[in-house]
Amino acid sequence: MAVIVPFETPGASIEELVALVAPDMERVNATILSRTGSDVTMIPEVANHLISSGGKRLRPMLTLAMANLAGYAGDGHIKLAASVEFMHTATLLHDDVVDESEMRRGKLSARMLWGNEASVLVGDFLLGQAFRMMVEVGSLRALDILSAAAATIAEGEVMQLAAAKNTATTEDEYLAVIRGKTAELFAAACEVGPVIANRPKAEQTACRSVGMNLGIAFQLVDDVLDYGGKSAKLGKNTGDDFREGKITLPVVLAFRRGNDTERAFWIKALERGEIGDSDLDHAIGLMNKHRALEDTLVRAQHYGAMAVDALALFPSSPMKSALEQVVAFCLARSH
Amino acid sequence: MAVIVPFETPGASIEELVALVAPDMERVNATILSRTGSDVTMIPEVANHLISSGGKRLRPMLTLAMANLAGYAGDGHIKLAASVEFMHTATLLHDDVVDESEMRRGKLSARMLWGNEASVLVGDFLLGQAFRMMVEVGSLRALDILSAAAATIAEGEVMQLAAAKNTATTEDEYLAVIRGKTAELFAAACEVGPVIANRPKAEQTACRSVGMNLGIAFQLVDDVLDYGGKSAKLGKNTGDDFREGKITLPVVLAFRRGNDTERAFWIKALERGEIGDSDLDHAIGLMNKHRALEDTLVRAQHYGAMAVDALALFPSSPMKSALEQVVAFCLARSH
Repeated sequence: MAVIVPFETPGASIEELVALVAPDMERVNATILSRTGSDVTMIPEVANHLISSGGKRLRPMLTLAMANLAGYAGDGHIKLAASVEFMHTATLLHDDVVDESEMRRGKLSARMLWGNEASVLVGDFLLGQAFRMMVEVGSLRALDILSAAAATIAEGEVMQLAAAKNTATTEDEYLAVIRGKTAELFAAACEVGPVIANRPKAEQTACRSVGMNLGIAFQLVDDVLDYGGKSAKLGKNTGDDFREGKITLPVVLAFRRGNDTERAFWIKALERGEIGDSDLDHAIGLMNKHRALEDTLVRAQHYGAMAVDALALFPSSPMKSALEQVVAFCLARSH
Repeated sequence: MAVIVPFETPGASIEELVALVAPDMERVNATILSRTGSDVTMIPEVANHLISSGGKRLRPMLTLAMANLAGYAGDGHIKLAASVEFMHTATLLHDDVVDESEMRRGKLSARMLWGNEASVLVGDFLLGQAFRMMVEVGSLRALDILSAAAATIAEGEVMQLAAAKNTATTEDEYLAVIRGKTAELFAAACEVGPVIANRPKAEQTACRSVGMNLGIAFQLVDDVLDYGGKSAKLGKNTGDDFREGKITLPVVLAFRRGNDTERAFWIKALERGEIGDSDLDHAIGLMNKHRALEDTLVRAQHYGAMAVDALALFPSSPMKSALEQVVAFCLARSH
């Protein structure tokens, strides 16, 4: 049974984490800015379009938080955090090309403004810069973790491509996809903190678990938000997954729980891309009928609970408490 | 003045290098094969389509050759050579997307068979695997060189994108592009050999110079071959650069040496993409008129001579002689 995390607590916020890592985060932001610099002016233009477009920078904050939790006293976490954000940004640039997305974070995507070419190449540049910064930190173990993550992320995306438009995808198959494409970077971002602090293996795997499970929960909530959230209210960013024929957990559940007529609808819409004006509404209606969005959130809460329990190893501290609140925040986004 | 390398000597061949590195290259090929493996079957399919399509594997051979020249006795050069080939393959996959190429090495390009999505993502996967192998070798200095190369290659490609369709590009600007997009990987591939062998700095910079100058010469000869070679014979792979509006050195020279009518032709064809049936013939005619292809080869010979002189530091050996022949071979390809 899924464990229910109470996520409507007043503590469901990232504010405390933001405050605790603020001085370090300022240095990360300065590093990000200086490392997107290039005489080739298109590079900072494209990179900063995305980097300064108001992402929460959750992943680099996690690297800083875990380094702090591990009692790390050096400087390496700054560059590793910037590397993590570069890897994330590179992924977004490449994803937009792969998904042919027109919008990203409420702005025109880089590929719409500068073309697919620039998105692919600036992504490659940021990946290269990410590795350069990791090398400068000098921890072979951290390099090992982050380079393995880079390969796994790409593998997860290819898996998603291969599973695309297949409504028969199982929940386990879908989980394998999001472990790769989303959760692995969260896991690596968290794991490198105790690694550069030379903390015992048990702490490294604990931090990795926090990131992995938080990442899965984060993605599942994102999947729900794409259909308007638990209350299924249509907003400006809803329906993208549906229109792109993406198979996410709400679809997997609604398809499996549906009757033959309903399954025919999903196949027509997602596999064949034949989508009429009222079909998104109909899809959300079917999800509500089968509690697909609610149950996706119950699944998310399960992974959130695992993340919180993975943190339990660490003694009480403001940072630990801030991280628990981040888990609650990620879940509460669906409201 | 450019130094003329006699390139019609019987020694203009890569056969001797191939023979000398054959046992190591067998291990590199086995590594390449095992590291493209993935449960996600699309990954080995796409990767092997390109990897097994008969490239010469010149870059990994250079890594093996330089490690040998430096007296390296360990195992690390095998994985570094495989990494170099993966970086090269990733670049080709991404280039095909950027250039919208339909063919690569006489076969349909991966993007025509599996789509842009797969080409972008499998490229990312190979880059990730390349870094994993470098990390396993454990040399931070080699990691530094190859990760900097990854960023520089992408930077060179973006520079080319920004310069694209600009017939006013200068020779120096064009050189900066090909130093980044082509020669940097040759340089890094060569430099890591003496680096993992812990040889003195002078040998490292010598090997880097060999690679850098060989890479520039290689690209210039490629540019000439794209217009049919020195004798300007049209073959099955000619005219791609012209049709894609790519500004290469033969164009830079023909444009600068041309009159107003001729410049108007280049602008119409390359900047505006208005290309008629006989325009490639006309372009080659203008290049012949202004000796643009011949003089591009004279420039290439200059860089070839620099590569050979950079090798002069090393005592005579079969490997040194094989490398000199490789330089001659790269230049002689134009015949």
